[in-house]
Amino acid sequence: MSHFTDQLAAGVLSKGTPVLVGLDPRPDRLPAGLLSPADSQNPIHVANAYEVFCKGIIDVVATHVAVVKPQAAFFEQLGPPGMNALATVIRHATEQGLLVILDGKRNDIGSTAEGYAEAYLGRDHSAWGADALTVSPYLGYDTLEPFLHAAAQHQAGVFVLVKTSNLAGKLQDLITTDGRKVYQHVAAQVQDQAHASRGACGYGLAGAVVGATHAEQIAELRSEMPSSWFLVPGFGSQGGTAADVAAAFDERGLGAIINNSRGIIFAHARKEYASQYGATQWQQAVEAATRDMIDQLRAETPAGQLVTRNSW
Amino acid sequence: MSHFTDQLAAGVLSKGTPVLVGLDPRPDRLPAGLLSPADSQNPIHVANAYEVFCKGIIDVVATHVAVVKPQAAFFEQLGPPGMNALATVIRHATEQGLLVILDGKRNDIGSTAEGYAEAYLGRDHSAWGADALTVSPYLGYDTLEPFLHAAAQHQAGVFVLVKTSNLAGKLQDLITTDGRKVYQHVAAQVQDQAHASRGACGYGLAGAVVGATHAEQIAELRSEMPSSWFLVPGFGSQGGTAADVAAAFDERGLGAIINNSRGIIFAHARKEYASQYGATQWQQAVEAATRDMIDQLRAETPAGQLVTRNSW
Repeated sequence: MSHFTDQLAAGVLSKGTPVLVGLDPRPDRLPAGLLSPADSQNPIHVANAYEVFCKGIIDVVATHVAVVKPQAAFFEQLGPPGMNALATVIRHATEQGLLVILDGKRNDIGSTAEGYAEAYLGRDHSAWGADALTVSPYLGYDTLEPFLHAAAQHQAGVFVLVKTSNLAGKLQDLITTDGRKVYQHVAAQVQDQAHASRGACGYGLAGAVVGATHAEQIAELRSEMPSSWFLVPGFGSQGGTAADVAAAFDERGLGAIINNSRGIIFAHARKEYASQYGATQWQQAVEAATRDMIDQLRAETPAGQLVTRNSW
Repeated sequence: MSHFTDQLAAGVLSKGTPVLVGLDPRPDRLPAGLLSPADSQNPIHVANAYEVFCKGIIDVVATHVAVVKPQAAFFEQLGPPGMNALATVIRHATEQGLLVILDGKRNDIGSTAEGYAEAYLGRDHSAWGADALTVSPYLGYDTLEPFLHAAAQHQAGVFVLVKTSNLAGKLQDLITTDGRKVYQHVAAQVQDQAHASRGACGYGLAGAVVGATHAEQIAELRSEMPSSWFLVPGFGSQGGTAADVAAAFDERGLGAIINNSRGIIFAHARKEYASQYGATQWQQAVEAATRDMIDQLRAETPAGQLVTRNSW
């Protein structure tokens, strides 16, 4: 059970859903009452509000989903107080039984990559205590090794950027002389690393970030990367639908976690929920949006298989 | 004078050197006396030692060089106490009249990239107060825009990873159907952005990270990217020499800053300096190594031009 992807499979199966809640706090989108306009210029007050907000989200989603993904950028934006809040949020999520993927898109070469790996990878063996980290591949495949090494040692995982959900990502789509696009080269490398580090569930420690706005590419990458768990962003706010992400799953309903950040955490401001829940009921709105996304994925994707299974 | 590259040109010219000192602290390589073995397991004590060490370096190099580059990974590795130390080190460098390039290799899409840009870019307008940030291009050229926008607004700069100094960086060297390598596509994009944002010195806000272990590529990229300031890592410890980096400069001796991290900050442990300076004289060793690198670049590269000029 200590292999990261086995923990992930067990979590997804026990909750019966691959929904991954993204924690992307923004000062101007917090529910009323969490941050006064006067306090929104003070990073210490904003960081405190982020803590309250993210803990409140964690408390309502922890019974429904297996994984959360804090976005490092929004905490870094506040300077040191934001980093304290990030550490607190990660710890709280862990205490609530959630797996934590830190979205930091880090990388560097050699001993510096080791520094990032040791900073983030491993609940009990790293400074920040995340279970997994997103990693950028531009610095070369050799730079993934320190992360995979730390992941193997500390029951953690890595999600490498393969195909992102923004539309103008031309670099990833450059066609190379063998006919493959750049992202397909990255995919092949990640698959090799994943295959070499498979757990009992069949998936390895090298996962892939595959954007939800490229439905054909998700299907293609699923077949090219049978050993990589997919982290699929772009669902909801960025335009991805359940139909788009269906191909990310294997026939067991495993192999993919589907991220929604703004659509869930700022549900209090969505018209579907704002009318039903009052200003102080933002946590109920978060819970309703989470349940709705779970239901939608169960109805329209192989994630529906999860509720009838009890192991992988 | 507010344009970042003009500040950089003025700084390099006033100090007469393009040497960039990298601040990459490691617990096991600190000079004796800064951190006891017992304290090296406590991140608060390690962070305090990093502060003392980096401030001590800054205090001796500030009269000799114009720019320092803290490596975010090693501070992040300590968790929140490390981030407090990073903020203190950046502030101290600024107070000593240095420009600060934070080496974080950040990026993301859309509003998340804006978050990183607002976190780091701008001495008086960002949480961390850096003058420039290193940025990864894998997420696509559109993701560079929030950084360049923030740089233009806040008198800051960006250095995009183009060609890194590790040897196995195969992704950057993939050959595309038009005969260009992936890094050459990135170079063309960065050059366009740099050209569009030129300051009085002729260089634009989009700089490039170009590794020192690829001498021919430095020459090629210099001619392909006439508007981009180069940040050249890999000098010294990673094997780059003055001859390797000579082609990074323009005929004025401008256009490149040459980074040395371990070779300078851990000079107390290099045999050239250890015999000359005692255990407590690590700051003198740092200063001697800095002077030696300055002399070497003056003798063997166009940086020698700088000492006879008084403007760009």
